[in-house]
Amino acid sequence: PSRVKFYMQDRQLIANSTGVVVAAQGGNLTLYGFGTLIVMDDPLTETPCNDSRLVGRGQGMYLVESRSDFHLLVSYSAFLETSSYNGSLVFHGSYKALQSPRELPVIAGTGDFRGVQGYAIVTT
Amino acid sequence: PSRVKFYMQDRQLIANSTGVVVAAQGGNLTLYGFGTLIVMDDPLTETPCNDSRLVGRGQGMYLVESRSDFHLLVSYSAFLETSSYNGSLVFHGSYKALQSPRELPVIAGTGDFRGVQGYAIVTT
Amino acid sequence: PSRVKFYMQDRQLIANSTGVVVAAQGGNLTLYGFGTLIVMDDPLTETPCNDSRLVGRGQGMYLVESRSDFHLLVSYSAFLETSSYNGSLVFHGSYKALQSPRELPVIAGTGDFRGVQGYAIVTT
Repeated sequence: PSRVKFYMQDRQLIANSTGVVVAAQGGNLTLYGFGTLIVMDDPLTETPCNDSRLVGRGQGMYLVESRSDFHLLVSYSAFLETSSYNGSLVFHGSYKALQSPRELPVIAGTGDFRGVQGYAIVTT
Repeated sequence: PSRVKFYMQDRQLIANSTGVVVAAQGGNLTLYGFGTLIVMDDPLTETPCNDSRLVGRGQGMYLVESRSDFHLLVSYSAFLETSSYNGSLVFHGSYKALQSPRELPVIAGTGDFRGVQGYAIVTT
Repeated sequence: PSRVKFYMQDRQLIANSTGVVVAAQGGNLTLYGFGTLIVMDDPLTETPCNDSRLVGRGQGMYLVESRSDFHLLVSYSAFLETSSYNGSLVFHGSYKALQSPRELPVIAGTGDFRGVQGYAIVTT
């Protein structure tokens, strides 16, 4: 078992957002609610500071899958390229976005992470 | 190995639908065909009766992925909260929607279901 | 460990495309860029020749998940029906679409492939 830590600089619904809405109820892409699909491409950094050293990119989707809570179906890959490893970790599962910490499964990996499985503890 | 059974109260394409269409060919969200993306948030109950005891929510997506059959790419989580367990099961795979029983992989879990893998037998 | 080989007759962005765009930035379905969601239903054949023996269908989605490279979140199932096996392989992960060979995780399977895990080496 091993452990990887990174900071995902994810900004949604604000200026300089790192994501885009591509589908939503009624085709209204300004709506952020049940059914909204967001695609993100986020810098992954070494420390919480958004100008700290880049260790990769976090790319994939969020889908708002609940009517009354804020549950997201999350599916993304962390492409990590550092002196220690080169490969991707694949995250897939659902979480309550307003809860912290929350858990997200790691279902697969490529490159140096081929065959991995585990989970992430996500805090905001 | 252990076994969990629940009933998913899923209603599509009818009044009081539990899902919404958010993407489709040509942007026509009234179309139900190849490419249509549906997001659902369904009650999970203890018995087939839709007013039986709630054991959780099934939330995620269906994507119509075939031109001539009715194959769905299904990705959803069952958030289960009962006196016996608290956590989510992550289902992901494809099935022929008109076939029953059909099989759907369980690829991961969180909380009490952390690390699970297996499969579901789905009947309608 | 075992090995399955097939050829996926996938044509995007050209005449007789095997896929359709169903979501994109700004709702512009003629856009092929960050955020574009494509659903495909592709013949799987025994040899690279597109009129060779059909061994199944590859069905699912591509999501353009990068702003400046051509990274795809790929999630699809290969429904395989031959005299040797009957079932589906579930592929899910991200790759750099312009790189060849590239790696894609196999996260699950159904039917004869129930419980499988591994990876695919994809070349174009």
